[in-house]
Amino acid sequence: MTEFIPPGTRYHALPSPFAFKRGGELRDAHVAYETWGTLAADAGNAVLIVTGLSPDAHAAANADNPAAGWWEAMVGPGKPIDTDRWFVICVNSLGSCKGSTGPASIDPATGELYGLRFPELSIEDGARAAVEVVRALGVTELACVIGNSMGGMTALALLMLYPGIARSHINISGSAQALPFSIAIRSLQREAIRLDPQWNGGRYTDQAYPESGMRMARKLGVITYRSALEWDGRFGRVRLDSDQADDDPFGLEFQVESYLEGHARRFVRFFDPNCYLYLSRSMDWFDLAEYADGDVMAGLARIQVGKALAIGANTDILFPVQQQQQIADGLRAGGADAQFIGLDSPQGHDAFLVDVARFGPAVGGFLSSL
Amino acid sequence: MTEFIPPGTRYHALPSPFAFKRGGELRDAHVAYETWGTLAADAGNAVLIVTGLSPDAHAAANADNPAAGWWEAMVGPGKPIDTDRWFVICVNSLGSCKGSTGPASIDPATGELYGLRFPELSIEDGARAAVEVVRALGVTELACVIGNSMGGMTALALLMLYPGIARSHINISGSAQALPFSIAIRSLQREAIRLDPQWNGGRYTDQAYPESGMRMARKLGVITYRSALEWDGRFGRVRLDSDQADDDPFGLEFQVESYLEGHARRFVRFFDPNCYLYLSRSMDWFDLAEYADGDVMAGLARIQVGKALAIGANTDILFPVQQQQQIADGLRAGGADAQFIGLDSPQGHDAFLVDVARFGPAVGGFLSSL
Repeated sequence: MTEFIPPGTRYHALPSPFAFKRGGELRDAHVAYETWGTLAADAGNAVLIVTGLSPDAHAAANADNPAAGWWEAMVGPGKPIDTDRWFVICVNSLGSCKGSTGPASIDPATGELYGLRFPELSIEDGARAAVEVVRALGVTELACVIGNSMGGMTALALLMLYPGIARSHINISGSAQALPFSIAIRSLQREAIRLDPQWNGGRYTDQAYPESGMRMARKLGVITYRSALEWDGRFGRVRLDSDQADDDPFGLEFQVESYLEGHARRFVRFFDPNCYLYLSRSMDWFDLAEYADGDVMAGLARIQVGKALAIGANTDILFPVQQQQQIADGLRAGGADAQFIGLDSPQGHDAFLVDVARFGPAVGGFLSSL
Repeated sequence: MTEFIPPGTRYHALPSPFAFKRGGELRDAHVAYETWGTLAADAGNAVLIVTGLSPDAHAAANADNPAAGWWEAMVGPGKPIDTDRWFVICVNSLGSCKGSTGPASIDPATGELYGLRFPELSIEDGARAAVEVVRALGVTELACVIGNSMGGMTALALLMLYPGIARSHINISGSAQALPFSIAIRSLQREAIRLDPQWNGGRYTDQAYPESGMRMARKLGVITYRSALEWDGRFGRVRLDSDQADDDPFGLEFQVESYLEGHARRFVRFFDPNCYLYLSRSMDWFDLAEYADGDVMAGLARIQVGKALAIGANTDILFPVQQQQQIADGLRAGGADAQFIGLDSPQGHDAFLVDVARFGPAVGGFLSSL
């Protein structure tokens, strides 16, 4: 894999050993993170962002790294997540390859890559690692925890495991449990990687790398991250120019195919296949119902948080808005002042990354009201 | 591939040569078909069924083959497509491996399998082949042409190419043109097959067969043929019993994964990979707008048919009901008495195969009114 950890990334060493929910432990592990803004004297203005599967900790430009981040339009001075007011922390997920310890890291016990010897990763392990960073920064109570996509799961786990850790919560395109359509998609993505002979039971190298499997997984991801509605308007049936099209009789012909190919090319060598497998599976396993005898609404109602916003795009097929409605309903049943907003963004699950016109005011309005 | 052509299948020899829309031709080709009921003396009671990508011509039990067919609940005496009244013809698509000539057939010019030397197949070629069967059976005007899924495209092509060929039309979960979401899905399915090293440029054998690619393609198909709503109720988060689950750390764990695996196993050796590629690509290419200077509604309006029903499931993500609404609107603009019905079937694109309670009365009611 082509390593790509943003410059300016900071690291926090986790307690060693760091035990995992499903068994096993890490030694000498760390979490990558970045921050924006200034922590108030009473440490009361901290906002934590936990991310989806693939992002690094570089959500936006900061002094350590002026390059634009993956949520640049949302995080910064005067932006919806206003770094003039908030001290913002973004954590790279435990198990990722973007700076935090994961399957692509060296196991200090062997001096070799963990690979499939990495312990079974749960969303809860990522939540616990993120809290270690928060505490190390001198924060005992967050003003808000914001989670996007997989991060929406991480945020709920964090709120469940650490009562009182946050006064408020924004859950963006997240869910309280994985449902079978999204499990099926992720299972197929993992199968694509595992079926690639170059995956080789997780013992691939840069020279013999499961590029085909990663390409398939990424394309399937992108298909489910967007929406048919958006693509009808964006691509329609437009064909590639003859000089871009493929001579292969079953090769690229339509613009939408070229778009997927471009996304795949920008991903396959920039994300570690084993990390992908571990993070993907952790989402399938996540289920807040485990905390309330199999009742997901009761699980949500066990969470103690003052104020909450659950928000998503009506075109999201991977984390459908019914799941964000459920989060708001469940948190409200637990006593929170909780609101649900389903936005008419055409961009599907990825809308929170690109439809700043809709997501910005919703997120910014909530934070302003705190 | 394990050959599986139903017993009792009949064959009609196509004119030789049989020229294709995009160039090339077949010699000594044939189309597989079956019939039910009795053709009236005036040949006025004939109903043609054109199918989706994978079905054979055996839509239902008949004298030649008493085994249940793929649309058994819909076709038969007293059933919605009532064979006491109608003489029903079902044609296996040209290019398929279920009896009609396709890429898995022997090329008489070489004595070898066509493979990728089969000419580029369009939906229109399948429509023309179906009309050859209809005419050979002594039918000059169909009472109705019924097309499901890809067959909905074939039926529209047939109506466009042969004005007056049918007095009425039922379009079920079909579309007048392929849109980018479905193109993306099909492109990825084809890529999965083509990336399998055993596909070998279309020159696989039973011993070296692209089983992994076909498994991926089929699983992705099944995911898009059904709906998240159905699966939430059907599978939820139920896990496999420990004796069914996989020891592989990333193997089958949830019931939904086992369901997909079962579907894949029942498909991969029963459908020819090259036939799959050709039929799949023909759908991407289909666009009635070609017949009206790029305006799909004008293309539909060029079709002359007396009465039409366009019907689909509101949960269909592959051929969304907006496309059936468009068919009804376009045919109506052309002068047809055309109706659209979007049914609340939870089963997505496949609902017409399983939700007989909803599709049966709609189809039966339309045919009764003729």
